[in-house]
Amino acid sequence: MSALPGGIIPALLTPVDSRGDILRDHLVSLLEYTLDCGVSGFYVGGSTGECFLMSVSQRKEVLSIASETVSGRVPLIAHIGAQNVDDSFYLAEEAHALGYSAISAVTPYYYGFSFQEVFSYYQELCQISQLPMVMYFIPALTGRTFTSQEIARLAAIPGLEGIKFTDGDLFKLERLRGQLPDFVIYSGYDELLLPSLSLGVNGAIGSTYNVTAPLVIALWESFREGDLARAGHLQRELNTIIEMLVGNNLYPTLKDLLARRGLGGGLCRRPFLPLTASQKEESARIDTHITRVISSLG
Amino acid sequence: MSALPGGIIPALLTPVDSRGDILRDHLVSLLEYTLDCGVSGFYVGGSTGECFLMSVSQRKEVLSIASETVSGRVPLIAHIGAQNVDDSFYLAEEAHALGYSAISAVTPYYYGFSFQEVFSYYQELCQISQLPMVMYFIPALTGRTFTSQEIARLAAIPGLEGIKFTDGDLFKLERLRGQLPDFVIYSGYDELLLPSLSLGVNGAIGSTYNVTAPLVIALWESFREGDLARAGHLQRELNTIIEMLVGNNLYPTLKDLLARRGLGGGLCRRPFLPLTASQKEESARIDTHITRVISSLG
Amino acid sequence: MSALPGGIIPALLTPVDSRGDILRDHLVSLLEYTLDCGVSGFYVGGSTGECFLMSVSQRKEVLSIASETVSGRVPLIAHIGAQNVDDSFYLAEEAHALGYSAISAVTPYYYGFSFQEVFSYYQELCQISQLPMVMYFIPALTGRTFTSQEIARLAAIPGLEGIKFTDGDLFKLERLRGQLPDFVIYSGYDELLLPSLSLGVNGAIGSTYNVTAPLVIALWESFREGDLARAGHLQRELNTIIEMLVGNNLYPTLKDLLARRGLGGGLCRRPFLPLTASQKEESARIDTHITRVISSLG
Amino acid sequence: MSALPGGIIPALLTPVDSRGDILRDHLVSLLEYTLDCGVSGFYVGGSTGECFLMSVSQRKEVLSIASETVSGRVPLIAHIGAQNVDDSFYLAEEAHALGYSAISAVTPYYYGFSFQEVFSYYQELCQISQLPMVMYFIPALTGRTFTSQEIARLAAIPGLEGIKFTDGDLFKLERLRGQLPDFVIYSGYDELLLPSLSLGVNGAIGSTYNVTAPLVIALWESFREGDLARAGHLQRELNTIIEMLVGNNLYPTLKDLLARRGLGGGLCRRPFLPLTASQKEESARIDTHITRVISSLG
Repeated sequence: MSALPGGIIPALLTPVDSRGDILRDHLVSLLEYTLDCGVSGFYVGGSTGECFLMSVSQRKEVLSIASETVSGRVPLIAHIGAQNVDDSFYLAEEAHALGYSAISAVTPYYYGFSFQEVFSYYQELCQISQLPMVMYFIPALTGRTFTSQEIARLAAIPGLEGIKFTDGDLFKLERLRGQLPDFVIYSGYDELLLPSLSLGVNGAIGSTYNVTAPLVIALWESFREGDLARAGHLQRELNTIIEMLVGNNLYPTLKDLLARRGLGGGLCRRPFLPLTASQKEESARIDTHITRVISSLG
Repeated sequence: MSALPGGIIPALLTPVDSRGDILRDHLVSLLEYTLDCGVSGFYVGGSTGECFLMSVSQRKEVLSIASETVSGRVPLIAHIGAQNVDDSFYLAEEAHALGYSAISAVTPYYYGFSFQEVFSYYQELCQISQLPMVMYFIPALTGRTFTSQEIARLAAIPGLEGIKFTDGDLFKLERLRGQLPDFVIYSGYDELLLPSLSLGVNGAIGSTYNVTAPLVIALWESFREGDLARAGHLQRELNTIIEMLVGNNLYPTLKDLLARRGLGGGLCRRPFLPLTASQKEESARIDTHITRVISSLG
Repeated sequence: MSALPGGIIPALLTPVDSRGDILRDHLVSLLEYTLDCGVSGFYVGGSTGECFLMSVSQRKEVLSIASETVSGRVPLIAHIGAQNVDDSFYLAEEAHALGYSAISAVTPYYYGFSFQEVFSYYQELCQISQLPMVMYFIPALTGRTFTSQEIARLAAIPGLEGIKFTDGDLFKLERLRGQLPDFVIYSGYDELLLPSLSLGVNGAIGSTYNVTAPLVIALWESFREGDLARAGHLQRELNTIIEMLVGNNLYPTLKDLLARRGLGGGLCRRPFLPLTASQKEESARIDTHITRVISSLG
Repeated sequence: MSALPGGIIPALLTPVDSRGDILRDHLVSLLEYTLDCGVSGFYVGGSTGECFLMSVSQRKEVLSIASETVSGRVPLIAHIGAQNVDDSFYLAEEAHALGYSAISAVTPYYYGFSFQEVFSYYQELCQISQLPMVMYFIPALTGRTFTSQEIARLAAIPGLEGIKFTDGDLFKLERLRGQLPDFVIYSGYDELLLPSLSLGVNGAIGSTYNVTAPLVIALWESFREGDLARAGHLQRELNTIIEMLVGNNLYPTLKDLLARRGLGGGLCRRPFLPLTASQKEESARIDTHITRVISSLG
C-alpha cells in the first residue's frame, strides 16, 4: 500500500507580484482557503505553479512556504522536475528536508530523449531520494508520450509509486490500472475526472481545483456514494467552468478569481501577461458563475 | 424521445469469399448468433462491414439480407454514407424500403470539406429520407474533426437525431451530452465503453461486439445496476481482448473467430489480406481466451 | 529509362453541371487551352478530377473524353485508384484500351491497411496492367504515410515506375531521389515546385496548373536554364496565387476561373458547394491578378 | 542591411565531463577546428549546446569561452532564450558585454503562450538589448508554431532582424522570404539546406556542421556558383551522414566524432546518456564514412 495521498489535490498556484517575486501572504491565504474546503493534499511547484518560469531559489521558497503553512495537516507532493537535472536533485533533497510526503517530476521535455534516457533519469532520482516518486505524464505539453508498457517499466523502478496522468487517452489509463493494481494513478485532466473515476483512479490533481474545490469534492463524494447521476451533473458544472476559464487565459484568470475572493491572487510570471480589461470583465462573470454553482451545492 | 435504439449494437461484419462476394449464409449465421446473445440492434453496412470496399449493389445486398433475417426482432440502422453522394441517396431510399429504423452516414472524408459543405450534405440527406439520421463521427479515419459547437449545429438539422461518437475525446462527449440532452449518443470506441457510460451515452456501436456480445452486455447491465466494480472488471477483460485483436489485424481476425465458432466467418475484401499462418495461430489463442472469459461470466 | 512523361502536367479538373453530370464540351475546352499553353501531359481522373465523388462509369467517361481529345499529342496518365479494388482493376483495363501511357493509384485510404496489404494491392495492379504505374502519395489526405525505405520497396515492384509525391517532407523526397535514380518522381505540391526541382524531380503534377500553366512552364524553363533568380520570382508569384485560391475554396474557384476565360468551367460535385457571392467576387479578383501576372511574363 | 552574418554557421556543441562540467579545452579545440574549416560564424549556447540542461552560470561560461577564443575572427550569435525570462535578460546583457554580434531566443515553450505573450516577450528582449535578435523557430521541439503572418508581425519589432527557421514547411519559408526581403533567414534543418537555398535563405545554422563543415561549405559554394548538380550531390552525401547520425543518438555521437578527430569531444549532460558499446562501433563507422566523403571533395 503506497503512502501517497488519494482524493482531491489542487495543483497549487503561485501568486507573484509584477516583478515576478513570490507573494508569501497570498500563497498562505490560498493554502488556508483550500484546506478549509477539505482538499486531501497539495501538489506544490508544478506546471500550474509556474515552476519552469522561476529560479531554483524561488522554487525552493514555494516548497518552503507550503510546508510551513500546511504543517502536516495534509500530505504534500513536491514537484521537483527541471530541465537541468542538478536542479531536480537539489529540489528533491529540499523536499525531503522540508517534510514532503512525495516528490514528482515531469518527464524530460524539449529534447527528444530516448526511453532509456528517461528511465535512467527517474531511476537516478529515485535512488537519491527517500521519498516516493510520482511521475508527471503530460504529453500535450512535453511532446513526448509513452505506451502503457513503457509506463509499466518505469513503474517497476523502486520508489516510483505513482503517476499524474494528464492525458486524454483513457484506454491507456485503463490499461495501466489493469496492469498495475497497486500503482497510484492521479487523474490530471480536471474535465475527465468522472470517467477517470469510473476506471479506478486513486485521486485527482488539477489546477482548476484552486477555485472549484467544493464542487469537485462534492463530485468525488457523489461518485464514492454511487450517485452517478449527481456526479455526472457536477462534472457538467465543472466542465462548463473549465471551458470559461480556458477561454480566458487560464492561469491569470485563476489568480484573478482568487483576488475576487479576497485571497490576494497576484499575477503570473512572464511571458504570461496580466488580464486585459475585457478578460477582467469575463473573469468577473466567471466568478459570479462559480459562486452560484458552489452555493447551489447544498 | 427519439426512436433510435439504445443498448449494445454490433457494427455488423460482412463475410465474403475469396472473390469478394457476399456469403449470405455466413451473414445470416452471424446475425442469428448475436441476436441469441441479446444485442439491441445492428449497425449494418458501416466501416466494419467494409462498405467502402464494396459496390453499391453489394451494399444493398447486405442491407437486404440483414433486414430479411432480423425481420423486426431488433431495430436496424443502415449505414448509407458514400463518397459519391448519389450512392448515399440511393442507399437511403433502399434502407427505407427495407424497413430500417434509421440511417447513418460517415462525415465526408478524403477531401477537406468545409463545415458548410458537411452541413449541406447532412441537410440534404435528412430532407430526402423519412428515417432518423445518425451521423458517424470517426475523426481518426476521416481526418476531419468537428467541435462540440459544430456537432450541435448539425444536431439541429431536423431528422439528425444521433451520433456514433467514435473518438477518444471524452471532454467533447461530455460537452455534447450536456448541451443536447435528447440527442442519441452512441459510444463508438469499444475500449471506452465504461467511461462513456459514466458520461451518459445511450448505447454503443462496435465491431468487437460481433464476437464479445455476452461480455459487453454483462458490462452494460453491471453499469445499469450500479455495480461499477464488476463493470470495471468486465471493461478490463474486454480491453485485453481488444488489444489482442488489434495486434493481429482486426477485421480478418474477427472473421476467423466467427469461423472457429462454426459461424462461417469468411474473408475480408481486398486490400485486406487473409491471416498469415502465425496470425491464424494467434487467432486460435484469442478464441480460447474469449471463450474462457465468456464462460466465466456466470 | 521510363516512358513516363516529364515536365508540367496538370491534374485535370472535371467540369460538371448542377446535377453532377460531366460537361464534355467544357472538358474539351480545358484540354485544348492547356495544350496550347504547352503542358507536357495530363493526369486524368485524380483527386483534383473529383474521381472519388463519381461513379465508375463517369470516371470511365472522363478517361475517354480526355484520350479522344488529346489524341496522342501528349502522354496521358489515368488515375484508376478506388476504394473498391474491383473498380481499380476495371479502370486500369479501360485506361489501357483507351491508349493511356500510364496508370496511377492513390495509396489505399480510410482503413489503416498494413504495408503488406498496400504492397499486395500495387503488386496485383501492376501484374494485371501492361502500363507503368505511378503511385499517388498524398499522406495529408489519406492519413497514411510511408518511409522512404517503404516507398523504395514499393518501387521495386515490376511496373511501379514513378510516384506523385504530394508531401511537404522534402528530406524524404531527397532520400528517394538519392536511392532511386531511375524512379520517376513528380512534385505534387505546386507551392514547392522550385525546391523540389533543386532536388531533381522529373516533373510536376498539380491542380493549379489548370489555370497557371504559362507561369509554371516559365518557372520550369527558368530553372532548366539555370536562372534561379527568375525561377524564385515566379515561384513567389505562383505561391501568392495559390494562397488566394486556397483561401477561396480551391476546386470551385478553379472552375470559376475557367468560366471567366470562356472555357466553361462548370461546377464541382457534391458535397462541394458552388461559390457564394463573396467568393465569386474574390474569384474575379484572382482572375484579374493571374491575368496580370501571366501577361507580365513577356 | 542587417549586420547579421550569412553563410555556414555551426550550432556549437558544448563538451562536458561526466559530472556535467564544461570542458574548456575541448570547446576551444572545436572552435579552432571549425574556424579552420572556414565557417562564417557560430551560434553559441543553443539547443545543440544543451543550454536548457545547464545552469545560467554555465551558459555564461560557454558564451565567455567562445567569445574569448574566436576573438572577433567571425561574428558570434548568443542564444539567450530561457524559460525563466530573468535568465534571458541576464544572458542578453552578458552577450552584449562579451562582444557578441547578435542574440537569439527560442520561442517560449512548454506552456501554450498566446501570440500576444510571445510578441511581448520578444519586444521586451529587443528593448533591453542593443544587439539584433534572431528568433529561434523550431516548432517540432517547442510544440508551438506560428503562421507566416504572425512571424511577419514579430519581424516588425525593432531589433528583431532574423529567424533561425528550423521547420520543414518550405511553403512557409518561401512566404516569409517573399514578404520580408530584408529579413535574415537561416535554414535550420541541415537536411534541407539546398532546397532552402533555392528559396533564398541568407545562411544556415546547424548542429551537424560541427563535424561536416568542409562538406557543407562546399555545398554552399557550389550553389553560389550555379553548380546545382554538384550541390545536389553534396546534399545527398550530407543527408546520408545525417541519417546515420540521427539513427545513433545525435548529440552524443557528434561529440564522439570530435573525440575521434583528436578534438576532445566530451559527453552530454544528463538526461543524455553516453553511447553504448554498439553505438560506439557505429560511431566509428560514421567517422570513417565522413572522413572518406570529406577527403573526396578535392
